[in-house]
Amino acid sequence: MNIETKSINTVRVLAADMVQKANSGHPGAPMGIAPAAYALWAHGMKHNPKNPAWADRDRFVLSMGHASALEYSLLHVTGYDLPMEELKNFRQLGSKTPGHPEYGRTPGVETTTGPLGQGIANAVGFAIAETMLAAKFNREGFPVVDHRTYAVCGDGCLQEGIAHEAISLAGNLKLNKLTLIYDDNDITIEGSTDITFTESVPKTFEACEWNVIQLKDGNDHAAVIAAIEESKKSDKPTVIICPTKIGFGCPAKEGKASAHGEPLGEENLAIAKETLGMSADKFFVADDVYAHFAACMEKNQKAEEAWNALFARYQEAYPELAAEWNVWHSNELPDEVLMNDDLWHFEKGNATRATSGEVLNKLAAILPNLVGGSADLAPSNKSDIKGGGDYSAKNRGGRNMHFGIREHAMGAICNGMALHGGLRVYCATFFVFSDYMKHAMRMASLMNLPVMYILTHDSIGVGEDGATHQPVEHLSMLRSMPNFHVFRPADAHETTAAYLSALTCGTPTAFVLSRQNLPLYAESDGRAMKGAYVLGKECRETPDVLLMGSGSEVEQLMQAKEVLCREHKISARVISVPCMDLFLEQSSEYQEEVMPSSVRARVAMEAGATMPWYRFVGLDGKVIGMDHFGDSAPAALLFKEFGFTCENVVSTVLELVKK
Amino acid sequence: MNIETKSINTVRVLAADMVQKANSGHPGAPMGIAPAAYALWAHGMKHNPKNPAWADRDRFVLSMGHASALEYSLLHVTGYDLPMEELKNFRQLGSKTPGHPEYGRTPGVETTTGPLGQGIANAVGFAIAETMLAAKFNREGFPVVDHRTYAVCGDGCLQEGIAHEAISLAGNLKLNKLTLIYDDNDITIEGSTDITFTESVPKTFEACEWNVIQLKDGNDHAAVIAAIEESKKSDKPTVIICPTKIGFGCPAKEGKASAHGEPLGEENLAIAKETLGMSADKFFVADDVYAHFAACMEKNQKAEEAWNALFARYQEAYPELAAEWNVWHSNELPDEVLMNDDLWHFEKGNATRATSGEVLNKLAAILPNLVGGSADLAPSNKSDIKGGGDYSAKNRGGRNMHFGIREHAMGAICNGMALHGGLRVYCATFFVFSDYMKHAMRMASLMNLPVMYILTHDSIGVGEDGATHQPVEHLSMLRSMPNFHVFRPADAHETTAAYLSALTCGTPTAFVLSRQNLPLYAESDGRAMKGAYVLGKECRETPDVLLMGSGSEVEQLMQAKEVLCREHKISARVISVPCMDLFLEQSSEYQEEVMPSSVRARVAMEAGATMPWYRFVGLDGKVIGMDHFGDSAPAALLFKEFGFTCENVVSTVLELVKK
Repeated sequence: MNIETKSINTVRVLAADMVQKANSGHPGAPMGIAPAAYALWAHGMKHNPKNPAWADRDRFVLSMGHASALEYSLLHVTGYDLPMEELKNFRQLGSKTPGHPEYGRTPGVETTTGPLGQGIANAVGFAIAETMLAAKFNREGFPVVDHRTYAVCGDGCLQEGIAHEAISLAGNLKLNKLTLIYDDNDITIEGSTDITFTESVPKTFEACEWNVIQLKDGNDHAAVIAAIEESKKSDKPTVIICPTKIGFGCPAKEGKASAHGEPLGEENLAIAKETLGMSADKFFVADDVYAHFAACMEKNQKAEEAWNALFARYQEAYPELAAEWNVWHSNELPDEVLMNDDLWHFEKGNATRATSGEVLNKLAAILPNLVGGSADLAPSNKSDIKGGGDYSAKNRGGRNMHFGIREHAMGAICNGMALHGGLRVYCATFFVFSDYMKHAMRMASLMNLPVMYILTHDSIGVGEDGATHQPVEHLSMLRSMPNFHVFRPADAHETTAAYLSALTCGTPTAFVLSRQNLPLYAESDGRAMKGAYVLGKECRETPDVLLMGSGSEVEQLMQAKEVLCREHKISARVISVPCMDLFLEQSSEYQEEVMPSSVRARVAMEAGATMPWYRFVGLDGKVIGMDHFGDSAPAALLFKEFGFTCENVVSTVLELVKK
Repeated sequence: MNIETKSINTVRVLAADMVQKANSGHPGAPMGIAPAAYALWAHGMKHNPKNPAWADRDRFVLSMGHASALEYSLLHVTGYDLPMEELKNFRQLGSKTPGHPEYGRTPGVETTTGPLGQGIANAVGFAIAETMLAAKFNREGFPVVDHRTYAVCGDGCLQEGIAHEAISLAGNLKLNKLTLIYDDNDITIEGSTDITFTESVPKTFEACEWNVIQLKDGNDHAAVIAAIEESKKSDKPTVIICPTKIGFGCPAKEGKASAHGEPLGEENLAIAKETLGMSADKFFVADDVYAHFAACMEKNQKAEEAWNALFARYQEAYPELAAEWNVWHSNELPDEVLMNDDLWHFEKGNATRATSGEVLNKLAAILPNLVGGSADLAPSNKSDIKGGGDYSAKNRGGRNMHFGIREHAMGAICNGMALHGGLRVYCATFFVFSDYMKHAMRMASLMNLPVMYILTHDSIGVGEDGATHQPVEHLSMLRSMPNFHVFRPADAHETTAAYLSALTCGTPTAFVLSRQNLPLYAESDGRAMKGAYVLGKECRETPDVLLMGSGSEVEQLMQAKEVLCREHKISARVISVPCMDLFLEQSSEYQEEVMPSSVRARVAMEAGATMPWYRFVGLDGKVIGMDHFGDSAPAALLFKEFGFTCENVVSTVLELVKK
């Protein structure tokens, strides 16, 4: 057996050993696609295991994240900081080898994958980011940004709609530094792919303007190496179709669905090792295999050294660009943003989507690496960077992305762009269509990516478009997601606060914005960054009642406060709650200060599901909300129809106080 | 101008008039695709405006739901019960002409559309249902089920991933009675489709095994009529690609993005009417146009009469089948289900996903029109109907659908199947992937469709697969959705209750089910159908504390109750809450009986986001939940690690009581 085959088989049995020891996981895919993965990791890909943070490394995405044992095995044998102990600890608490690859947990893992299709879109995002940075920083003789993105996917990824969205867009954008390796093994959990997936994959990719390389045998690693080299020459993104056998090397399971998601079993594993000509020892890597991978990595070590030298010369030749490079790659916000009075200055009330557009543009002027776009709703979302240019195959310097009507891919592409480094990223759509990209938003939360979501048309304020376009449960959906901030600002000041919070918090943040005009409050300010604060002070020393809400409903709460004081001698406090998540992160002292626990007469109002508010109004309070769908009519009429009025707040308070 | 053209132009200006009067809506698409729509509604499609409920009618789906004015115009001129007054009331409160077409609100509207891509998948569902019913009921000489499904879509629909999922599956299933008309107008909101959508649509459809008919000019209604006739002969689903001009007839807007989503303006509208050779009057339909449509409908009237005669003969020839037909088309449950002790009989505790599999199979034996499937996770979801056969192009009588790894299309296809009538429908995936089909579930809620969702692997109980596969916020996401029931049963009895509730309530219902084994409680029973009930009675006459939760966490609550009584002399009541939504629908007396408002010491525990529980524990209670992501480790360890233990419940109660 030559050393290449031995190395490939080592990866195969390492993966199978991991799954066997954990008694959980997916051995079949790693065993099938190991030759292609070897071709990529040992030969085709530019990466330095000694420095996973090297800016100009190629990016790798295991879109079929369930094959995590493959990636961990490769990380180990190529010399990343992932000792054999971690492989033995596969899928155990606190290990660096969780069930699916997790960004930030394992050196060399570029993105969290597992939910299928996401990784393909992430890879498109990586490739886009590379072109943007190249357009910005590269100069004649100084290709400081010049790397590729590789992804490995299976049948499952390609069946997911998000994959088609991303593939179609990647073709349109001619992302020629993107190579996708397709593990074409004809098997999914329910059986042969014939039962549901007979689409011609090569034809679909051709229709989407990709370069298609169809291999005869995915087991032929030399052919894969050649294909990867060929893909580097294309002016289109490339898919390399690798016919493989799931569970290759394990006679009892090879080519069968049963190879997918359970350990081979000790006996089968032993037979597999014998079949593959490997040692029967568990977690065994022969010295010559380690040596082979180390030799393969030498060119990478040299590549990084060459790049470091190049970058040093670049710093001399283009000191200003090099300084900008550092700014782009830093998470710190310049004082120009933090100390910027202009960001807080507004003449009058406006729709928060319009204010968002203003703030975004002011920020874009200060932050040149702020880029993003909409899923074909930019004019409505007010999400364009004016004068920023349109990003396209012909204009890699454009800052406005056109994602097309592809919300799910948009979300996952933004994750890839944010993961790449160098950019601050936002995307936009109608709030109701956050549904379509929910899982990409979840992945951003899992990875702690500071992606910003501009979500306009936030309630029945949508008006005539009707129930299909009026969000109801979406605030609850996003607020209940861990590690994610939802801002629903009541006015322009709170909109600015939302942006500053998003740029400093490190978490993904959604801006939930009104279509219709809202007031501008003299009392609103940076306190909004605490998530909730006293906007309307009680008319006596202490409040008899707490009124709370967010966004457009704050206006009626403020009116009600006046009426209650004037006409009913009731001292009401209005608490604006633009971001519940942040308020819950404040000290209990601050929370108590804003919402004194002694005051039990509490009314919350929000044009969305009532669920999130009971935490603050308790058993004795009331929530005025929407636990039903909306309707098609002018917005002002709907707010009245559904009880979002000053009168309703007043009568609700009176009822409460009477009790 | 011949009468065909006059009729087409009438539809065009009617739609533009509607949008103008409402000062809101989308005139461009109706004006562009009107000739094809005319071809379909006046000639190609079998439908009887006098009886929109005729079982063997062709089904029509306007996937580009923003073109609602087109559908309303067609409904009106072809003679459905939609008077001109309703057209004048477009997008107004209480009208039958809401912003986007809504099922159940307007006679002749077969499905609610607007969110793009959904309609294509709905249409695939309609077409699948037709084949299933045909396989069941048709006999030699008695084609009682023999109708087609037509859908009209735009660029936006085709960009959405859900569309590709549905298209790929439709090709695999050879749904030859499905015809999709593609309004290929090269325009989306942000501008020319070139900026983001240059994929070859014909090639993609060919790759997906569709019959592709490329027309030269979508304005040539005769060519569309011919294409529709041609599509009827194909053994594959057909797409008819109609190149059109958005805003056709309005010189100032034709072919421009500005024609899409706003009124033409009075002046432009007047010019358009002149350009099209139409009367300047508003909402005007010439007598000869009404007469032309009426003449076109005569063949439909005859077709229904012929079908009625056929069905009468069928009833004589196959009385048993005809009786079954009535059962299949009724929503009532037979006594065999309602009075079935066997459904409530279990030997021992089990994973609720396993119990669900048992219950599903028992029900399937009684309800032959119960069909469904999984997004490639049937073995894990336990969602197969044993012996039901696999539905495929070759076996239309199969009851087990293989949706492929296409959750979003699965959800929307099930909506179409449920809308069609005749079937009871379920689908299945991992709970965490309900994200992928969230919006299809929302559409089911909007339409009040009794689709059942089998969502297994409901929490950190997933174990080693890790955070990516462990739902956290999903219970909140679904519970906050109006008109949707979420069941998370604590044991087998509650699982049966969930199914019976789903089959009788009429709303969509999710079953959120455990991967791991759960106990079987002697005390659990049909009271679970009330959403919440006293499972563990307090040890003294009244409870000192209320313990509440759902699913797997009920076990620790029951243990804690015993410990509290025995060791701390605290009388705790355990309330099992399998379905919060249903509990909130109960009388306030029942709610008070279960959760007496005098008892303020309350602890809720659930392995999910805490948000939904504050409604029941208030400001003085505590929620033990997961407001963070999970981890990769054996499940039992995770439950301990994250505090879902009897000990934690006990200490939380002691702390509360101490206060």
